[in-house]
Amino acid sequence: MMDLILIGIGTGNPDHVTLEGRRAMAEADLILVPRKGEDKADLAGLRLAILAEAAPHVPVAEFDLPVRDAAHPDYRQAVEDWHDAIALAWAQAAGQAARVALLIWGDPSLYDSSLRIAARLQPAPRVRVVPGITAIQALCAAHAIPLNEVGAPVLITTGRRLREGGWPEGVDRLAVMLDGETSFRHLPPDGVRIWWGAFLGMTEQILEAGPLAEAGPRIVATRAAARARHGWIMDIYLLARGESG
Amino acid sequence: MMDLILIGIGTGNPDHVTLEGRRAMAEADLILVPRKGEDKADLAGLRLAILAEAAPHVPVAEFDLPVRDAAHPDYRQAVEDWHDAIALAWAQAAGQAARVALLIWGDPSLYDSSLRIAARLQPAPRVRVVPGITAIQALCAAHAIPLNEVGAPVLITTGRRLREGGWPEGVDRLAVMLDGETSFRHLPPDGVRIWWGAFLGMTEQILEAGPLAEAGPRIVATRAAARARHGWIMDIYLLARGESG
Repeated sequence: MMDLILIGIGTGNPDHVTLEGRRAMAEADLILVPRKGEDKADLAGLRLAILAEAAPHVPVAEFDLPVRDAAHPDYRQAVEDWHDAIALAWAQAAGQAARVALLIWGDPSLYDSSLRIAARLQPAPRVRVVPGITAIQALCAAHAIPLNEVGAPVLITTGRRLREGGWPEGVDRLAVMLDGETSFRHLPPDGVRIWWGAFLGMTEQILEAGPLAEAGPRIVATRAAARARHGWIMDIYLLARGESG
Repeated sequence: MMDLILIGIGTGNPDHVTLEGRRAMAEADLILVPRKGEDKADLAGLRLAILAEAAPHVPVAEFDLPVRDAAHPDYRQAVEDWHDAIALAWAQAAGQAARVALLIWGDPSLYDSSLRIAARLQPAPRVRVVPGITAIQALCAAHAIPLNEVGAPVLITTGRRLREGGWPEGVDRLAVMLDGETSFRHLPPDGVRIWWGAFLGMTEQILEAGPLAEAGPRIVATRAAARARHGWIMDIYLLARGESG
């Protein structure tokens, strides 16, 4: 592998792909597509559908994505080992191909491990990143709202941070990602507004918004039902406090 | 105007446009393109070049973008008046067209006024947002770096906030936008790293990175020279503290 191209493909709408992303797919020698579990088979299917349209002549190598050892006593070490195993799986699946591409959900720069996995490859390939639409952008677009208040900051954070630390100081807008536990439940809801979305950009897209006190419980129920129905869920939300809107 | 479509077009590389963006351009009845000053004529030219390729059959209405009253004693009121004037200019340029599109730098959700201007239109059109690649994503892609440390938050903020408040509590990564004054100069540079980019995605793209102590002065000089050469500059940077890398 001489070149590794990490192509952001957005959040599930094939039309999120940029022209740059399509060109990068078409110019690759080989495209690696992970097989995940049964539950997320529709995600692998979406990648294959994008490729069939954008790069029909480029060979695709499917590979089994290694599974993180959830029983490992040291979480950080388990992640390190897991990333080592993924790097090995990439190298094996790539074989002798010189110009290898991977399709990355959202954008390779945001809460994604691909760049860190790529750094483990030996010999080191040239790494190129093609940006893609993130879930944050898909959320704001779906609700037709700005991410920020005028001239004000926004914190991108995780469900874990919100649960463990509460609302951070000095910022009134939070984009919360990687939250499997609807961590907004742990916040005092007064004066807080939420805009939530699941399966953003996909035909299954669900949106909810409102004051956290009334929208929060509705989102918890909607999310649980959607997750049961699909077998998996990807969701994200934006919280704002101290606004009249 | 029945429908107003705000289409994010990325940061200057026509290939940043998504398929969704291209489709939205092609389906519009009319596309509004602001004429800005001489200095930014190349930006208007880029919009027209994207349209000539993606939606050659759709009429384009150029309009003079009103100028904010920089002498107004009340900054917030001056912005309100300015947004009123832009909404009026949109409505006049749109004429009788039902389905009107605007091409927005980056993404309409991030430090952009279009949604707030659209809210002033009477009668209110349906507003649709098509997300686009932001300067933050173009910066990370160009440097091939993640925006966040693993599981850690990132603050998106402005040059003014950084100048006035220093490094905010509780977060080790800052994406700084709207900074015409290289406000990183006001930070104690020890232990801080910077990744900077100007004209991201464009052929004129310039990148600099390194420990702030040595990269900072270099960026100040590079930025001043590039701005003098082009007559304008668009730049952005990411700061990280407390990292070994």
